[in-house]
Amino acid sequence: MTRSRAACMTLVLLLVMACSATAQTRHDVAFPDLPGYETLLCDFHMHSVFSDGNVWPTVRVDEAWRLGLDAIALTDHIEYQPHRADVPTNHNRPFELAVGKALEAGILFPRATEITRDTPPGHFNAIFLSDVEPLDTEDFVEAIEQANKQGAFVFWNHQSWKGEEKGRWMDVHTTLLENGWLHGMEVCNGGGYHPTAHRWCVEKGLTMLGNSDIHAPDISGRTTADEHRTLTLVFVKERTVDGLKEALQAGRTAVWFNNQMIGRAEWLEGLLAEAIEIAPVHRRGKDYVSTKVANRMDVEVQLERTGSAGPASITLPPRSTTMVRIGTKSPNEPVDLTYEATNFLVAPGEGLSVSVTVE
Amino acid sequence: MTRSRAACMTLVLLLVMACSATAQTRHDVAFPDLPGYETLLCDFHMHSVFSDGNVWPTVRVDEAWRLGLDAIALTDHIEYQPHRADVPTNHNRPFELAVGKALEAGILFPRATEITRDTPPGHFNAIFLSDVEPLDTEDFVEAIEQANKQGAFVFWNHQSWKGEEKGRWMDVHTTLLENGWLHGMEVCNGGGYHPTAHRWCVEKGLTMLGNSDIHAPDISGRTTADEHRTLTLVFVKERTVDGLKEALQAGRTAVWFNNQMIGRAEWLEGLLAEAIEIAPVHRRGKDYVSTKVANRMDVEVQLERTGSAGPASITLPPRSTTMVRIGTKSPNEPVDLTYEATNFLVAPGEGLSVSVTVE
Amino acid sequence: MTRSRAACMTLVLLLVMACSATAQTRHDVAFPDLPGYETLLCDFHMHSVFSDGNVWPTVRVDEAWRLGLDAIALTDHIEYQPHRADVPTNHNRPFELAVGKALEAGILFPRATEITRDTPPGHFNAIFLSDVEPLDTEDFVEAIEQANKQGAFVFWNHQSWKGEEKGRWMDVHTTLLENGWLHGMEVCNGGGYHPTAHRWCVEKGLTMLGNSDIHAPDISGRTTADEHRTLTLVFVKERTVDGLKEALQAGRTAVWFNNQMIGRAEWLEGLLAEAIEIAPVHRRGKDYVSTKVANRMDVEVQLERTGSAGPASITLPPRSTTMVRIGTKSPNEPVDLTYEATNFLVAPGEGLSVSVTVE
Amino acid sequence: MTRSRAACMTLVLLLVMACSATAQTRHDVAFPDLPGYETLLCDFHMHSVFSDGNVWPTVRVDEAWRLGLDAIALTDHIEYQPHRADVPTNHNRPFELAVGKALEAGILFPRATEITRDTPPGHFNAIFLSDVEPLDTEDFVEAIEQANKQGAFVFWNHQSWKGEEKGRWMDVHTTLLENGWLHGMEVCNGGGYHPTAHRWCVEKGLTMLGNSDIHAPDISGRTTADEHRTLTLVFVKERTVDGLKEALQAGRTAVWFNNQMIGRAEWLEGLLAEAIEIAPVHRRGKDYVSTKVANRMDVEVQLERTGSAGPASITLPPRSTTMVRIGTKSPNEPVDLTYEATNFLVAPGEGLSVSVTVE
Repeated sequence: MTRSRAACMTLVLLLVMACSATAQTRHDVAFPDLPGYETLLCDFHMHSVFSDGNVWPTVRVDEAWRLGLDAIALTDHIEYQPHRADVPTNHNRPFELAVGKALEAGILFPRATEITRDTPPGHFNAIFLSDVEPLDTEDFVEAIEQANKQGAFVFWNHQSWKGEEKGRWMDVHTTLLENGWLHGMEVCNGGGYHPTAHRWCVEKGLTMLGNSDIHAPDISGRTTADEHRTLTLVFVKERTVDGLKEALQAGRTAVWFNNQMIGRAEWLEGLLAEAIEIAPVHRRGKDYVSTKVANRMDVEVQLERTGSAGPASITLPPRSTTMVRIGTKSPNEPVDLTYEATNFLVAPGEGLSVSVTVE
Repeated sequence: MTRSRAACMTLVLLLVMACSATAQTRHDVAFPDLPGYETLLCDFHMHSVFSDGNVWPTVRVDEAWRLGLDAIALTDHIEYQPHRADVPTNHNRPFELAVGKALEAGILFPRATEITRDTPPGHFNAIFLSDVEPLDTEDFVEAIEQANKQGAFVFWNHQSWKGEEKGRWMDVHTTLLENGWLHGMEVCNGGGYHPTAHRWCVEKGLTMLGNSDIHAPDISGRTTADEHRTLTLVFVKERTVDGLKEALQAGRTAVWFNNQMIGRAEWLEGLLAEAIEIAPVHRRGKDYVSTKVANRMDVEVQLERTGSAGPASITLPPRSTTMVRIGTKSPNEPVDLTYEATNFLVAPGEGLSVSVTVE
Repeated sequence: MTRSRAACMTLVLLLVMACSATAQTRHDVAFPDLPGYETLLCDFHMHSVFSDGNVWPTVRVDEAWRLGLDAIALTDHIEYQPHRADVPTNHNRPFELAVGKALEAGILFPRATEITRDTPPGHFNAIFLSDVEPLDTEDFVEAIEQANKQGAFVFWNHQSWKGEEKGRWMDVHTTLLENGWLHGMEVCNGGGYHPTAHRWCVEKGLTMLGNSDIHAPDISGRTTADEHRTLTLVFVKERTVDGLKEALQAGRTAVWFNNQMIGRAEWLEGLLAEAIEIAPVHRRGKDYVSTKVANRMDVEVQLERTGSAGPASITLPPRSTTMVRIGTKSPNEPVDLTYEATNFLVAPGEGLSVSVTVE
Repeated sequence: MTRSRAACMTLVLLLVMACSATAQTRHDVAFPDLPGYETLLCDFHMHSVFSDGNVWPTVRVDEAWRLGLDAIALTDHIEYQPHRADVPTNHNRPFELAVGKALEAGILFPRATEITRDTPPGHFNAIFLSDVEPLDTEDFVEAIEQANKQGAFVFWNHQSWKGEEKGRWMDVHTTLLENGWLHGMEVCNGGGYHPTAHRWCVEKGLTMLGNSDIHAPDISGRTTADEHRTLTLVFVKERTVDGLKEALQAGRTAVWFNNQMIGRAEWLEGLLAEAIEIAPVHRRGKDYVSTKVANRMDVEVQLERTGSAGPASITLPPRSTTMVRIGTKSPNEPVDLTYEATNFLVAPGEGLSVSVTVE
């Protein structure tokens, strides 16, 4: 073997080693913790071959590790199992098959299911269950009750997926709500945004969720601002299954959907406060000041001026720094800026208001 | 809703449409047809949840479409089925579940299996079966015989995967060969190259194969020179399952492994003849000529000079054009170049010899 | 030094070698030749430090090689030279500095300039000059006349860049046209499309051009469908400077602008005829046929149905194959499809009509 | 115009806006500040058309912004000016042309030059000059003296670029050193590492530098672990030109070269201490503990075990988290790990020693 061939073999060997190392690598996703809370990246809606998904349950844990998720719930349908002829029904089995791998990877993995009766009243996920079997009942309300008896967190999925008429609010939903059996709604599911669900979450104090509802293998290699699952950020006091549950019950979430964050004002404000850094003015012209604004998160921030100073619009791309030039007659004085973060939604069509002083 | 928000919604909508269109797209993989033969990109070794893989059988067809493959064989183990408790044994089932999707996608999909007894004598794939069940026998040789009774193409997988000792040639292999029951060997399997298998293919006239043996979901979005499965190029007279079988039996294959092509000289020569295009000399200096050499394939060509003219080494990256300057005292005369294509292997450690005249 | 460090050094060395090799590589851009014509990828408008660009002239040749261009013209302004204090005026100098490198790279490189008087009447490029100096005249028309005396091909740049009013057709343009001194117009310049120029080209038989007008260094590593300069495809009888001139004079061009091709119907039809390949039907259902349609070019083809059969719209991404399912009551009969290629513009807002029969 | 065309125009418009926004974006490069020091990313060696580079001086500032650099020095040769016929000599001019843009971008931009006499004694950069002209002297030592009179920081470039013999230490170097006129050396320049320079920096207390020495346009769109210029990290007390100078004089630097960091132990330790985060053990098996180790920097950390516990080697890719499983007979006790960071060099061939306790 000539020298160059030996070198080439070495290269191949090293590359192979590099590749296998990569397989265990989990690329960081950049969202800041909030004061007093750790920020977890979560997906509470996905399927395996045990219902209508087409991957083995453990694949969901592999994906979660690779994509930087902190918590997932595997929510195979109780009622809909098109592979039943080959994979006999066993409601607790997907959890049991995957939980060991989740523990090993340090991924929070509450036992869960999707209750899929007719629409209306729609599909509901129940997570933090101890046993899925008792939910396989005749009656829909009884299934929800059973979930609650186990202390589950229950949310309504993709509310308008069959249209607003079939996704309307019915007496049965009022019953669930009044009994304290309904705790949240998917504001976003996969590629779909549900403004009515969003509005109801605001009005009724329900927890906002965004999930992938993924059925096929996830072929993305990492989570980025440009390409990511619809996910829920959960702000926990402690990184445990119980900590996750407490945060969901308390409504401490934000939904990451395409290029948008959706949630209550306090959590969206918290993200911006921790992730956006405005440098001191580095240049004072005769009639302007220049500053640099860093966005440390993996989501863009789109700002439209609502006050009187600053550019009409500012875009802060993810993980980058943007130069901002602000016209002012008093370049040695602080300048107050007031903007709407149009892609940080606190209600349908309503962006978060933000004010800062540049000095 | 303000104007800019409406525009933004439009953008999102268009992007979503763009994404779903992409899902059906199959990016071209560039290999030339050979005179009289169409070149098919093939993978004859992969698994599903029906043995120790972790995807539903149809996922393999989705992957084949996305990755530009023309033919695949799903080869779940007859003997090794770690998911048996949840997915009861049914040897023909993976094929039956996926064949409709394969037909719809125009992907050749022969019925197949992997015969997994001890090593030695090793694992063998049988493809072009009509029924897998009869191969579930007590005796190894009988299983191979059953496959051959159905007219299968049978090849020995990853010969040295447990070391050369366990991958040694035994009497039973001689028996198979003498009966005409063994037709090929995997020279490459996944990330592994088996030089002994390569040598035996050359010596015994066995068909050379390269396959992925993939068990997990394939998360690559497309097939490229830098990132591709180990695959077999098959040169067929017609794009049908029968055409595929005829070509395999006739040994018309080349193995695409990392940055290498492995095969019989005539097929490797054919690929180079069709894919490499040398432009007429565009510049004649006092003591050199310059020409451009295009490589239309998705595999690099690495050339080392064995003759007296031309640069000591030339690298022709995939799908690109390279400028080559050739020193010569007679720049108006044709120049003969003789090189070894060091990454086009005709035997272990032996590259293909190539000669061209530049004029 | 330990073994692993030596291996690592080897890796680094090989990577460094790989990188320097890449520098000479020119990635293919995929456009088909037309029957009787070779297709050249061209950019006839760009600047260097000798006017208001900020690169040395040779950089434009390096870029052309890297980006797969076949011909470029360096068109520094005669009148506008903001770097004059540091780089004294010398109209022929940019050409002289770069032509040797262009010859070496086999890139066609006609001598050229931009005549930049007021707007109106606008800016004009003159290419295929023998000497730029005589164009440095007092009078605008005289400069154009001088260019024509040298046999130049003259075209009007970015017609509406200062608005349609300043880009209006004036008597002087009629004079140029009637004297045979104006041969083409930029339909697209950089990121801008000029529909009025497009219409005038159609009406007056002027050659359509698309150019980059690049001033800064081009930081793109290769030319792709997603990221490419605005360019002109020229269909030449021979790959020489004269061949290029003859083709431009004959109007054999198409403009590649973002995701669009703009040109005369015969050339756009030619591109589609050579680049789009419809496979024989591979599946006949009860009420449909399925076929695969390959697009071998680096530009997407967007089709909207104007006839009665086929999907309402079909998108054929670049260098990829798309599955098309066509509903029909007679799946064993040929099906006629009539579509508009909405991104292949033969006039402003008017896509090319295409008809094919699938069988 | 039809609706879909209007929508398409909207899309194009938005994309164009997005692109222009991107042009002002500066992607973050991830290196931590050290306690008491801010970390600046710097390149103190580059050229423009005023010597043998081929870009206008302002291009270097545009590149610095885009690539996330905090400070650059433009060091055109005093002696070597191949473009002199077209760009007459003016030593201070490159600085003057670019400084305004640097101030606007907030990039530190000391006036600088390269003193290029014979090799030996080699090339030297002088930065923090007030006037380059006085350095254009007959005598080499006088040029260095002039630089020092202006308070410059002077370093020896690419010591062994013409071989170790021509890069040998001579009496003149001793003179410079004894006079306090030589303050640092390039340990790395472009793609080259100079181990002798490295050793001399360690022995003589010279400041270690790594610079690009770039002449062509930089076509990389961002700085990443995989693709970055050779750069110097400088640990400053304040982000000003004076702060930069103080830090360089004090030797607070680290060199980022390919996949390596080179510097004094205290600064390399500081980087690791701030960038590597070891999570509390999340899983205790019978004979192992599992933990996650995050690397927040844009450089990989390669660890080889020198102690008795932990995996033989650990690779921590940039901006990612790696799972580490540590075998131990006492999984409830803290485990001490001792490793060598083989790609964090404190001397030629000698990696940094690191010790941590996992609990």
